[in-house]
Amino acid sequence: MHSEHTRILLSTITRLIRRGATRNLQKITDKSHAADIASVFHFLSAKDQVFLFQLIDNMEKKAEVLSELQEAEFLAVVEDMSPEEIAAIFGEMASDDVADLLQLLADEKSNQILELMEHEDSSEVEGLLRFEEDTAGGIMVPDFIALKKETTAKDAIAAIHQKEDVEMVFYLYVVDDYNHLVGVISLRQLVVSRPETKLKDVMTTTVMSVHCNMDQEEVAKVVARYNLLGVPVVDDNNVLLGVVTVDDVIDIIRQEATEDILRMAGAGDDLIEAQSVLKSTRTRLPWLFASWIGGVIAFCVIDRFEGVLNSALYLAAFIPIIMGMGGSIGNQSATIVVRGLAMGRFNVKQIAPVVFKELCIGGLIGFLYGLMIGMVAQYRYDMWQIGTAVGVSILASMTMAATVGASVPLVLARIKVDPAVATGCFVSTSIDILSVLIYFQIATLLLHL
Amino acid sequence: MHSEHTRILLSTITRLIRRGATRNLQKITDKSHAADIASVFHFLSAKDQVFLFQLIDNMEKKAEVLSELQEAEFLAVVEDMSPEEIAAIFGEMASDDVADLLQLLADEKSNQILELMEHEDSSEVEGLLRFEEDTAGGIMVPDFIALKKETTAKDAIAAIHQKEDVEMVFYLYVVDDYNHLVGVISLRQLVVSRPETKLKDVMTTTVMSVHCNMDQEEVAKVVARYNLLGVPVVDDNNVLLGVVTVDDVIDIIRQEATEDILRMAGAGDDLIEAQSVLKSTRTRLPWLFASWIGGVIAFCVIDRFEGVLNSALYLAAFIPIIMGMGGSIGNQSATIVVRGLAMGRFNVKQIAPVVFKELCIGGLIGFLYGLMIGMVAQYRYDMWQIGTAVGVSILASMTMAATVGASVPLVLARIKVDPAVATGCFVSTSIDILSVLIYFQIATLLLHL
Repeated sequence: MHSEHTRILLSTITRLIRRGATRNLQKITDKSHAADIASVFHFLSAKDQVFLFQLIDNMEKKAEVLSELQEAEFLAVVEDMSPEEIAAIFGEMASDDVADLLQLLADEKSNQILELMEHEDSSEVEGLLRFEEDTAGGIMVPDFIALKKETTAKDAIAAIHQKEDVEMVFYLYVVDDYNHLVGVISLRQLVVSRPETKLKDVMTTTVMSVHCNMDQEEVAKVVARYNLLGVPVVDDNNVLLGVVTVDDVIDIIRQEATEDILRMAGAGDDLIEAQSVLKSTRTRLPWLFASWIGGVIAFCVIDRFEGVLNSALYLAAFIPIIMGMGGSIGNQSATIVVRGLAMGRFNVKQIAPVVFKELCIGGLIGFLYGLMIGMVAQYRYDMWQIGTAVGVSILASMTMAATVGASVPLVLARIKVDPAVATGCFVSTSIDILSVLIYFQIATLLLHL
Repeated sequence: MHSEHTRILLSTITRLIRRGATRNLQKITDKSHAADIASVFHFLSAKDQVFLFQLIDNMEKKAEVLSELQEAEFLAVVEDMSPEEIAAIFGEMASDDVADLLQLLADEKSNQILELMEHEDSSEVEGLLRFEEDTAGGIMVPDFIALKKETTAKDAIAAIHQKEDVEMVFYLYVVDDYNHLVGVISLRQLVVSRPETKLKDVMTTTVMSVHCNMDQEEVAKVVARYNLLGVPVVDDNNVLLGVVTVDDVIDIIRQEATEDILRMAGAGDDLIEAQSVLKSTRTRLPWLFASWIGGVIAFCVIDRFEGVLNSALYLAAFIPIIMGMGGSIGNQSATIVVRGLAMGRFNVKQIAPVVFKELCIGGLIGFLYGLMIGMVAQYRYDMWQIGTAVGVSILASMTMAATVGASVPLVLARIKVDPAVATGCFVSTSIDILSVLIYFQIATLLLHL
């Protein structure tokens, strides 16, 4: 339904660009929401992106669209723009968005732009650039409404009047003479207070705040857990520096989920579909090296069992099912644990019960599927030893795989390595090798080879 | 940092429960945020969960904690509670939370509870239960502030005063005589308007709203895209029914990401770590059947090539690397496409360019790793034909895998099947089979077997 809307907008815009219908395009960009216009850019050629962007005649709309663009489209659009032009657009933009976009540009260009911006704006942006991009300091907006304890409700409302450019006001923060955060009051509490009430009499003094160096993922968890619309950011001395708003938190949650998903598949940590074939290849190539090494080791294992294979050739035909079943259940276990860790469902101090449970599940499922493949082998070769060897191997390798899949991410989280990254390249490779090893070892023993 | 806080709370509470220190436990539950208390429940035994919950003496806190619990803990806590007791707690809870929790109980118990609740509350809940759980109607809160166009700013503020129980007010909605949604005004706009201003003079008339039957994932996308704090829900006639708030949207985004991640791994669609071994097994068993069938088919393929294998036994040792490399790159491609679709980065009408790009990447990476494994084979067997056969097989199977991995989810999305579900069980299985088939076919041809 909603993406239908984007699709219609896209086809209309493409048609108008082809016809060069400048006036109609202008009308459409006037009427449409900046987020919708931005989503269309993704599907246009670089040339058309520039053409469409230049057509937007409202400076504020230009700023909105620019801040909603993906990295690749942003770079295409600003490539041929003069620093003056960019600075003028940035002047209309929230400073946290400006800081994000500046980081995508070359240092020289970004310094030129900063110099051209109004002092007030550029110093705000420079303040933000001091923080790491992925921390509370890097994602906060530095403008907020902070008032003194003695301020009356009436004066507080007057302050809102004045600070027109502050985005999304729903909390007012109360600070002492040294800008230390001492309280918070919601806009709603404010409007239902009598005009002469002092803030100190209605404010909440237990303020949920985050430190400027806190990782953005943790900030998002705080906002999600306590159902906040925004959270104040403070430094070591509890001095109020800025506010992280819920709309940015939503973007972070989506982005972190994407990161986890891609990392587990060893596909980088950002959606790279817009990059060139060569760039994508460069991102994905190194992750596959783990698989390659795993394959070479598995090759050596089988090579070592050449004698066994020689006297029981049929064993080769079961390699795929042994590897496949182990890989699948290991992937299940790893995924459940990685996601459970991200959602705060596991206590990393208690690894044993989780792993033991996965071991039981692996054993149970391995028993069932082992029995089934054993029957297939029995039917095909009519020798109970073969069926037994294959069945027991499935049982053993699935039990091993579930255990490995569950324990690797838990152990990594315990030693503070991102479980998603390391699990991706580690679990499937080690399961491949171990499955093959277990299989040939069991076959050798049971078939007396 | 933040999970550190939960950990300390957990260890304190566990210690106090062990010592039976009722009074101290009560103090801690009084002081702590309901979300923090709820997160501790997850790590307690069912008996301790009931004990701790009964200790909370504030009815409102009880309601907050209950609505924050996971399914399993909620069921444990209410199991031995009387319908009267539950109804009393539900009376303190937002009606959308009550509706969600009632759906977890047996029909009989849930009807008893509804009858015991106050009429106003229970009819709100019953209104919500009419909608599918995963739609805008199922997740909205039915209480909101709706006013007429002629209302003055002053009267609007008075209305906020009265409607104390409405959660998270940041927008006021304006309706006509038939409750049709005609405008919206933010609380901020309201407080900066002069008291005698009429709403119709300051309201925004282009209101972003969603239909009550819209899927919750789409609702979340609307809120995320337009940076909203809440979105009004309307029926076919644009009658205002309720509001979806941003805090619920955050939960949905996290939940939908979890669903996608688990589905792609064939591990159900909900985190099942709290369930018993048997229940988890039942959820995960069927997904593994695809792997099993794939393994059996791969077995048949190799079995058919028995003659080939007989005269070139060494071929068996390369089966793992062929399968592993194909599986890994196919997983990368499928993951990028599934996540890209979820994030709205692909236009499903344009399948060909995406698939073609993956084909190129697969070919390029396959060429490199094929060359490398070819050299390993050359070193081991000193026969260029073997190295060539294995190298070409890696090239072919990785190209095939990247293409299959990218096209399956795109085609599924096109025919409106959830790409995450179907990709999980489909892509890896078909890649396993095709890899083995391609490998033996190429080996037969190149080695003249």
